[in-house]
Amino acid sequence: MKNLLENIEEILLMGPGPSCVPPQVYAALSRKTLGHLDPYFLDIMEELKEMLRRIMNTKNNLTIPISGTGSAGMEACFVNLVEPGDRVLIITNGVFGMRMQDVAGRLGAKVDALEFAWGTPAVPEAVEKKIRQDSYKIVAVVHAETSTGVKNPVAEIGALLKGSDTIYLVDTVTSLGGIEVMMDDWNIDALYSGTQKCLSCPPGLAPLSFSDKAMAKLNGRKTKVPNWYLDMTLIANYWGKNRVYHHTAPVNMIYGLYEALFVILEEKPDKVFRRHRESHLALVDGLKNLGLKMLVDEPYRLPMLNAVCVPDGVDELALRRRLRSEFKIEIGAGLGPLAGKIWRVGLMGHTSRKENVARFVAALQEVLRKK
Amino acid sequence: MKNLLENIEEILLMGPGPSCVPPQVYAALSRKTLGHLDPYFLDIMEELKEMLRRIMNTKNNLTIPISGTGSAGMEACFVNLVEPGDRVLIITNGVFGMRMQDVAGRLGAKVDALEFAWGTPAVPEAVEKKIRQDSYKIVAVVHAETSTGVKNPVAEIGALLKGSDTIYLVDTVTSLGGIEVMMDDWNIDALYSGTQKCLSCPPGLAPLSFSDKAMAKLNGRKTKVPNWYLDMTLIANYWGKNRVYHHTAPVNMIYGLYEALFVILEEKPDKVFRRHRESHLALVDGLKNLGLKMLVDEPYRLPMLNAVCVPDGVDELALRRRLRSEFKIEIGAGLGPLAGKIWRVGLMGHTSRKENVARFVAALQEVLRKK
Repeated sequence: MKNLLENIEEILLMGPGPSCVPPQVYAALSRKTLGHLDPYFLDIMEELKEMLRRIMNTKNNLTIPISGTGSAGMEACFVNLVEPGDRVLIITNGVFGMRMQDVAGRLGAKVDALEFAWGTPAVPEAVEKKIRQDSYKIVAVVHAETSTGVKNPVAEIGALLKGSDTIYLVDTVTSLGGIEVMMDDWNIDALYSGTQKCLSCPPGLAPLSFSDKAMAKLNGRKTKVPNWYLDMTLIANYWGKNRVYHHTAPVNMIYGLYEALFVILEEKPDKVFRRHRESHLALVDGLKNLGLKMLVDEPYRLPMLNAVCVPDGVDELALRRRLRSEFKIEIGAGLGPLAGKIWRVGLMGHTSRKENVARFVAALQEVLRKK
Repeated sequence: MKNLLENIEEILLMGPGPSCVPPQVYAALSRKTLGHLDPYFLDIMEELKEMLRRIMNTKNNLTIPISGTGSAGMEACFVNLVEPGDRVLIITNGVFGMRMQDVAGRLGAKVDALEFAWGTPAVPEAVEKKIRQDSYKIVAVVHAETSTGVKNPVAEIGALLKGSDTIYLVDTVTSLGGIEVMMDDWNIDALYSGTQKCLSCPPGLAPLSFSDKAMAKLNGRKTKVPNWYLDMTLIANYWGKNRVYHHTAPVNMIYGLYEALFVILEEKPDKVFRRHRESHLALVDGLKNLGLKMLVDEPYRLPMLNAVCVPDGVDELALRRRLRSEFKIEIGAGLGPLAGKIWRVGLMGHTSRKENVARFVAALQEVLRKK
């Protein structure tokens, strides 16, 4: 039998995630496995929590990686914080807002969606009107809509909720590590992310943090969390001082995330964000020279996820296939109503470098020319 | 800042999992990350499914790794197959049977427990009486009770359920890859496992398989699965022919599991099982020479999880700490009513070798002598 792993090629990952992984993180993944209750591993867990707090800008005690991908982070936030019948407002302008509606609805929430056109950001005034009009237990929004490349005004919405009883739940899957996330300053109560975007660790973990207000809602539940695996009261007992065995932590993935955070903190977050911004601007410039247009208006663009309009007459799938096979570059397709209309070009984490932008723009030019 | 990963020592992992990882699997974990929809990665997924079928002895189409640890596999089986009000029988003789009760109860199942003393196996005649007396939608049992070292009669219970409408759900977290698991021959409908036991891949994935009968129950649900992340209808659409994006697969962990299965299939499962059996017998022999007793009667012992009675007057925690610090060996503590009464000595997968047994017995002798 042939072993397929032996012929894996190095692909420049410029899709919506996973992103390219730095060599130090690959090395971390293959460090010797320790037991999940080993004293040395417990030290690693403690430092990892502290590094997550630094990147999220929070003092929250419960700040840990969930043992699943970014979507498990979404599931964990809703399943712990929603009780059946809770009114939940989900600000929606893309696939991940829609996913939140599905997740919350399955858990018995009464879901209202406040919708904005895909490719445009949420409007704080409209959110304010909605939350003054109705009373919600939870208001949820996606910081960086990976399906459209739009940045939502998370700080402004958080300011509207300050001092209220409402739980503010924010998806930072694509933003964390690429742009500023100020969990405490923005009054965020529940935040989750993923490892495979701007943190540049392979997919498999979901960093998550709960504020004291979120913990109070969780601890005040009338019913058990209807998900044993993601029950944060049990998980907190393992990641906290008690070290009570819950499930076996994904040890080597945790090494990978530890190293990924270490690399970012060594480079300094401000410098990392600047690198994201600069490579984004270089990309926009390069695309403009090729006559291509961005989907999103300039002030709302994400540096790490660039939605590029497919020009008339171009077979978008054929182009992506050629980029992958001839140039070893992956970019992403549009989703939902944007399928066939945009490409999603990721400049996330380790990928986000001008030399990668240059390589991509040159390849794109070649492929468009020979179409 | 110091990087803790640089000083990770190699520990001989002889606890209840994780087990020692072969060098090929470490190397696989650090192969270059591919996109989760990359054509080459899809080929890897297809071969992985086929290798899982071989090790589980099943023809089931839906045979995949869940993106979470073994406990996520348990959660996935119950959340997909239980509808509120379903009567579920859980055969219980240890921690993991109790966990099943908790998981199923949270999902609205009417749970009956058929209990057997910890350290003894389930008795098929008692199961037969119970299932003739009452009608159950699901009967669940743990093949290898990791908390006690007991093997349950999974084949015999499966024979009792043959031809019935009842779904037979089996936990093979600790058994798969160390002893025979015959999913189809034993009439198992839903089976899950973990990667960090006898498969000797680090923790992080849960191999899972559903029979056509389980798929029919899932597809006949009156309500949506109350867990978006683990909804097998959505996951099957990604792992099946459609390749519809659900969540981002944990790509590098999947490389690790691919390699771990590859290593087992190259050695041949029969030979691997014999190795487990032989190292277990060597351990029992060595312990006997030290005057130590096994908790479980000989016919019901698991080769990969050995419950050893703590002799009177020995501080079990101090002994484990000395083994870890002086001899770089990890063994496990007892859980629940067996806490302080047993050690759990794992001989799982790559760990299960006579040289490791010899090293452990020598260390134990030393530690007991100098107590």
